[in-house]
Amino acid sequence: MSYRGRARKFLESASIDVGDMVRVEKPDVTYEGMVLDRADDADDRHIVLKLENGYNIGVEISDAMIELLEKGSEPRIKLPPVEAAEDPELPDVSIISTGGTVASIIDYRTGAVHPAFTADDLLRANPELLDIANIRGRAVFNILSENMKPEYWVETARAVYGEIKDGADGVVVAHGTDTMHYTSAALSFMLRTPVPVVFTGAQRSSDRPSSDASLNIQCSVRAATSEIAEVTVCMHATMDDLSCHLHRGVKVRKMHTSRRDTFRSMNALPLAEVTPDGIKILEENYRKRGSDELELSDRVEERVAFIKSYPGISPDIIKWHLDEGYRGIVIEGTGLGHCPDTLIPVIREAHDMGVPVAMTSQCLNGRVNMNVYSTGRRLLQAGVIPCDDMLPEVAYVKMCWVLGQTDDPEMACEMMRENIAGEINERTSIAYFRG
Amino acid sequence: MSYRGRARKFLESASIDVGDMVRVEKPDVTYEGMVLDRADDADDRHIVLKLENGYNIGVEISDAMIELLEKGSEPRIKLPPVEAAEDPELPDVSIISTGGTVASIIDYRTGAVHPAFTADDLLRANPELLDIANIRGRAVFNILSENMKPEYWVETARAVYGEIKDGADGVVVAHGTDTMHYTSAALSFMLRTPVPVVFTGAQRSSDRPSSDASLNIQCSVRAATSEIAEVTVCMHATMDDLSCHLHRGVKVRKMHTSRRDTFRSMNALPLAEVTPDGIKILEENYRKRGSDELELSDRVEERVAFIKSYPGISPDIIKWHLDEGYRGIVIEGTGLGHCPDTLIPVIREAHDMGVPVAMTSQCLNGRVNMNVYSTGRRLLQAGVIPCDDMLPEVAYVKMCWVLGQTDDPEMACEMMRENIAGEINERTSIAYFRG
Repeated sequence: MSYRGRARKFLESASIDVGDMVRVEKPDVTYEGMVLDRADDADDRHIVLKLENGYNIGVEISDAMIELLEKGSEPRIKLPPVEAAEDPELPDVSIISTGGTVASIIDYRTGAVHPAFTADDLLRANPELLDIANIRGRAVFNILSENMKPEYWVETARAVYGEIKDGADGVVVAHGTDTMHYTSAALSFMLRTPVPVVFTGAQRSSDRPSSDASLNIQCSVRAATSEIAEVTVCMHATMDDLSCHLHRGVKVRKMHTSRRDTFRSMNALPLAEVTPDGIKILEENYRKRGSDELELSDRVEERVAFIKSYPGISPDIIKWHLDEGYRGIVIEGTGLGHCPDTLIPVIREAHDMGVPVAMTSQCLNGRVNMNVYSTGRRLLQAGVIPCDDMLPEVAYVKMCWVLGQTDDPEMACEMMRENIAGEINERTSIAYFRG
Repeated sequence: MSYRGRARKFLESASIDVGDMVRVEKPDVTYEGMVLDRADDADDRHIVLKLENGYNIGVEISDAMIELLEKGSEPRIKLPPVEAAEDPELPDVSIISTGGTVASIIDYRTGAVHPAFTADDLLRANPELLDIANIRGRAVFNILSENMKPEYWVETARAVYGEIKDGADGVVVAHGTDTMHYTSAALSFMLRTPVPVVFTGAQRSSDRPSSDASLNIQCSVRAATSEIAEVTVCMHATMDDLSCHLHRGVKVRKMHTSRRDTFRSMNALPLAEVTPDGIKILEENYRKRGSDELELSDRVEERVAFIKSYPGISPDIIKWHLDEGYRGIVIEGTGLGHCPDTLIPVIREAHDMGVPVAMTSQCLNGRVNMNVYSTGRRLLQAGVIPCDDMLPEVAYVKMCWVLGQTDDPEMACEMMRENIAGEINERTSIAYFRG
């Protein structure tokens, strides 16, 4: 076994080996589960258990008592070298890590994020993945997602492109949850993909019994083997630990600070419900595996402003962005797509300078309609691009991407209005807004 | 009758008077209802019908045929002068108009907003109000709510204060829906009130059969006679035209661009469900009528920035606000209350200059918790004020108000963290987030 130091002594004191069923008693809680193997560089203060409910948890041993319940006939989670594990009958799924809480599935020390991310680490924590696919793991970088920025979108897109080019039948991208929906939108525009590209993450690190990491990663690998060849987000569907929803990467938003079912399809239904064992399509209108050729369009413009409108906002904020050489502006307006009429002159100025200005709504649900009220009509006359039912965050990402593709403001306006990756939904259903 | 010109001839051609039941046939639709009286300055191209379902609609007459169904024994909606209508048994409710779609309940010309707003106009459209209360109406100003700004919050607060001082048992504020939740938050902080102050509006003007104006105004007047002496928002509870929800003014947000049930309590339950006939309390924890003395604290600081964080945001945006002399900054961060670490130095600079910086979450649902991840802890060390479960919009309004009350940054921080008007909810329930 790879346990060492105190953890090794703790296990050996009760003649326990990896794969054995044990009961661990702590002053406030008792766990029963199977002892899992550890990462090679793990500390010696924790052991890892796989609980009945499928969760893997790290248990701090200093105040713990351990008891053998049942000897594993042989170590059940004996991890073979990845090369040897390849099953020609199974699809090949690449897991790319960019960092975030989900990367801590491989580290049971509280709060810390493991700097490395290999298939070995991942499979040690989730041996069930080997039943779904041959897994290859790769860490692109390791950052908290609040620090993501457009140049990292490009790096991520290139890494995914590389994996698909190398023959992956699907790619899972492990990502922090804070800005996952910005990055999933970015890759939706940058990539044409013949295979699934599935973003996933975790709201709770796997050292907590309530961690969502294990189910999310298993469902994501399952989704990566599916027929849905789009950039998607796969996260807990409900507060229960039963299934995930697969959301279109341009129609999803983090809607709760801490809940595991924080990601919600907005102005759309989830594409599918996913369990580790299978996938149930909820929305038939998706791009099928193999229908697109692989293509990467990874140029982005970083000088794009994303401005929330509010009562009292000064037009000088927009003016400042123009003076600083920003090349595009996305406004998160109010209601049907409004902002104070004091902003209209500077918006017209931006338009006349060739800086596209796009309008979205901070309502998030529903559709911008700038023909209903006079403010909207005046904004249209000033050249504002109405973004239909696009999320504000998606419109911002799209503007960065569009201005990477063209220098022509007219063309940029046209591209903003065109549905490129499912970001504009022509149909609207009352089922889209549950409140 | 007050109809004139073509409308008068149209009615007289079938010997129809105000109060009669009629059938009106248009090429595409047929209406049955009672002919209502009109505002004195109305055009002569429409007649107004009260439909069976309670809606009042304006019907364009140029291509319409009219037929008398039943003669009203006498004009049922004969509006008495408001002075004479006062019933000493009923409470006195003042309706203050600030503009917006709901103000068009008194105008059936498509799209236009009526510049005046009197009790007569209002009662002509909603005679049922006289069964609930003695109504007094007053137009403070008439603007679209996207043009609201802090100085208008002050004017509105003063008008409400004046009505309560003059003896109103409750006040209804008619307001455009775009920024109603900003203004309701502002008045929540500015006013201590012994009586209900109820914001309402309309998503569809009353010339449309689907208008929500009539139910909203009736339920709001009912809520204004209730025991809930807080600043609230009263709008459609569901897509059905059955009842309204009464939301705490600091825990509500417009969540859909066009639906009538767009306003939702966030991180809280609605306080009550309201029909024109009664009120059902859903949340017992409210301030009771008469428990507070009337008090107005209407100073606000207008130089407050409200900045949405996003991947790629430049610290120079915050720097610019500091250079311009802004006195407070509210960030709509990601997840549990994060922003890119590139912003931390300039946030520390702001803090050191005595400019408070507050952190909220663009997730909207849930609570900021800046102790979980390193970014949050570093932001706390830089002096950032965590806003718990306060909505970003409410934190912005509160910062404007707090900096109007004190020049001391320490005191401002303390006030931001203190629960003043129910904006910080200590308890959290899974019922708060339906997705």
